[in-house]
Amino acid sequence: MELHILEHSLKVASIEKEGIQICTHGLIKLAFLASKTRCKFFSLTETPEDYTIIVDEEGFKELPQSDLISVADATWLALNVVSGGGNASSSQPIGVTKIAKSVIAPLADHNISVFMLSTYQTDFILVRERDLPMVMHTLSSEFTLLRVVNGETVAAHDLGVTNGFVKPKLVPRPVIHPLSSPGNMFCVTSLDPDTLPSVATLLMDVMFYSGGSKEVGASGEDSSHIRFFSFSLIEGYISLVMDEQTAQRFPNNVLFTSASGELWKMVRIGGQPLGFDECGIVAQIAEPLATADIPAYYISTFKFDHALVPEENIQSVIRALRTEGAAP
Amino acid sequence: MELHILEHSLKVASIEKEGIQICTHGLIKLAFLASKTRCKFFSLTETPEDYTIIVDEEGFKELPQSDLISVADATWLALNVVSGGGNASSSQPIGVTKIAKSVIAPLADHNISVFMLSTYQTDFILVRERDLPMVMHTLSSEFTLLRVVNGETVAAHDLGVTNGFVKPKLVPRPVIHPLSSPGNMFCVTSLDPDTLPSVATLLMDVMFYSGGSKEVGASGEDSSHIRFFSFSLIEGYISLVMDEQTAQRFPNNVLFTSASGELWKMVRIGGQPLGFDECGIVAQIAEPLATADIPAYYISTFKFDHALVPEENIQSVIRALRTEGAAP
Repeated sequence: MELHILEHSLKVASIEKEGIQICTHGLIKLAFLASKTRCKFFSLTETPEDYTIIVDEEGFKELPQSDLISVADATWLALNVVSGGGNASSSQPIGVTKIAKSVIAPLADHNISVFMLSTYQTDFILVRERDLPMVMHTLSSEFTLLRVVNGETVAAHDLGVTNGFVKPKLVPRPVIHPLSSPGNMFCVTSLDPDTLPSVATLLMDVMFYSGGSKEVGASGEDSSHIRFFSFSLIEGYISLVMDEQTAQRFPNNVLFTSASGELWKMVRIGGQPLGFDECGIVAQIAEPLATADIPAYYISTFKFDHALVPEENIQSVIRALRTEGAAP
Repeated sequence: MELHILEHSLKVASIEKEGIQICTHGLIKLAFLASKTRCKFFSLTETPEDYTIIVDEEGFKELPQSDLISVADATWLALNVVSGGGNASSSQPIGVTKIAKSVIAPLADHNISVFMLSTYQTDFILVRERDLPMVMHTLSSEFTLLRVVNGETVAAHDLGVTNGFVKPKLVPRPVIHPLSSPGNMFCVTSLDPDTLPSVATLLMDVMFYSGGSKEVGASGEDSSHIRFFSFSLIEGYISLVMDEQTAQRFPNNVLFTSASGELWKMVRIGGQPLGFDECGIVAQIAEPLATADIPAYYISTFKFDHALVPEENIQSVIRALRTEGAAP
């Protein structure tokens, strides 16, 4: 198995709901006018609390400075696991479950906090740049470590963490944050970048003009429905996570899913904003899912974490995670 | 001939170039997401100096408050001339030349300042709401005056200017402002609102991401070329004025023009910003054009005025207007 350390230097930012107006100019450029920017890594996730942006240094320049934007105090690097050869962008979806024991758990054991971004195409594990030596040391026994440099994959150099480093004892990792499961169901989809312009106004409507509106209630939706939408354009690949109702607004055959009509339920993690320093949150969720062999997407945002699991597994997942939490 | 007094209460605003970022959210809603707003009258014109916005009260709410936005201190009403029956929106293009002697000159004679917006579909004559009684009085001998109320055309009530009002002596009206004619040529076009989403990203690129960039020079364009682009969405009808180079970026058959391939040269009026109080500027230009029977579109912006005349007439137009200016 290969672990690719991508070359993007990433910033993670939170835009408050009322700040989206001043950011729309830059965000539209990043999402819809790729030829106008050299940004190669852009992700936007809207939750009820805020918009979380993950963006490389080129893209970060497109955001204004404002009190309505908070930026996490670190530069992040994206890792992804590639089974077999080939480069990162052609890798198959793996699911956070598949990397739970090989990547997520060891990093948690070494007190390295991670920020997860599952997309239609792959799962990005974001780590702080300053943690990279420790990350590489931790994962070097399981993986061939490769760095992407100027688009080429090369062997990652040893960064010199060779001693003073004790393999930690593996301890139980109870689920310590409250969990909730919204009523709506989600699709994890993609679309051909060539068809992006044809649905751009619809996507803009969803991304910048639907949040916080009262229309949701008016259309008779379940009050337990959550506002959650994620768009990413990473190295030319588009990924979209949206609920069933939003997906129905798109023309037929524009969105594609790996298994047609596959729907996912969400487990939302956190009773109050989680912050970036606590380690092991992803592991608390991903390990029990891996044990039960339940596939899952996982999207961290500035304030909460979100796992998506198959509709039919949601009850057993919640039960399993609550049991973990109850037995520390 | 009928003169329709439309029911929109309009604001005229100028957005500075660097202010477009904070306005993009609102402007995209007004231009591309009509179902999200009750705005029925929206026009945006970009010049080298600024963006001029004409928008009704509903649309005005979409603009933020900012030092980068100046709003003309008045509410404006739009008039348009309809030859024969039918409602305003189905009227044929008339050209400012055709209304020069019947509307523009009499209003100038009565010291009523006007703001012109020619579109693909019609020519809107904007007057200050407070000038309406005088406007009606001035034009009542030539026109059947009708007001649009809740979308219905009804007879306009006499607003009570019946005396104390002397018909002014007609005096010569020399062209007193400097004129210039940029090197590029323009098309006045429209597109089907149903096809708007398919070109929305291209239009956004042109409207919000192309101004002030250095790319223009890099692509080898004549330095005498002017940045000028006008988009309007008024009562469901779209009008676009753009230069030839910009039009070539659109897919074939999306834009339509009344006479295919018709190109217009611009006469730009004003050596420094014209302001809103001076009367008769439109008349200075439109009357000589009417005398020479040269069709023209006319677009006022916050700071300058712009007439578009057929390519083959530009030299004689400039000569005629300069002669007017030289012989006061």
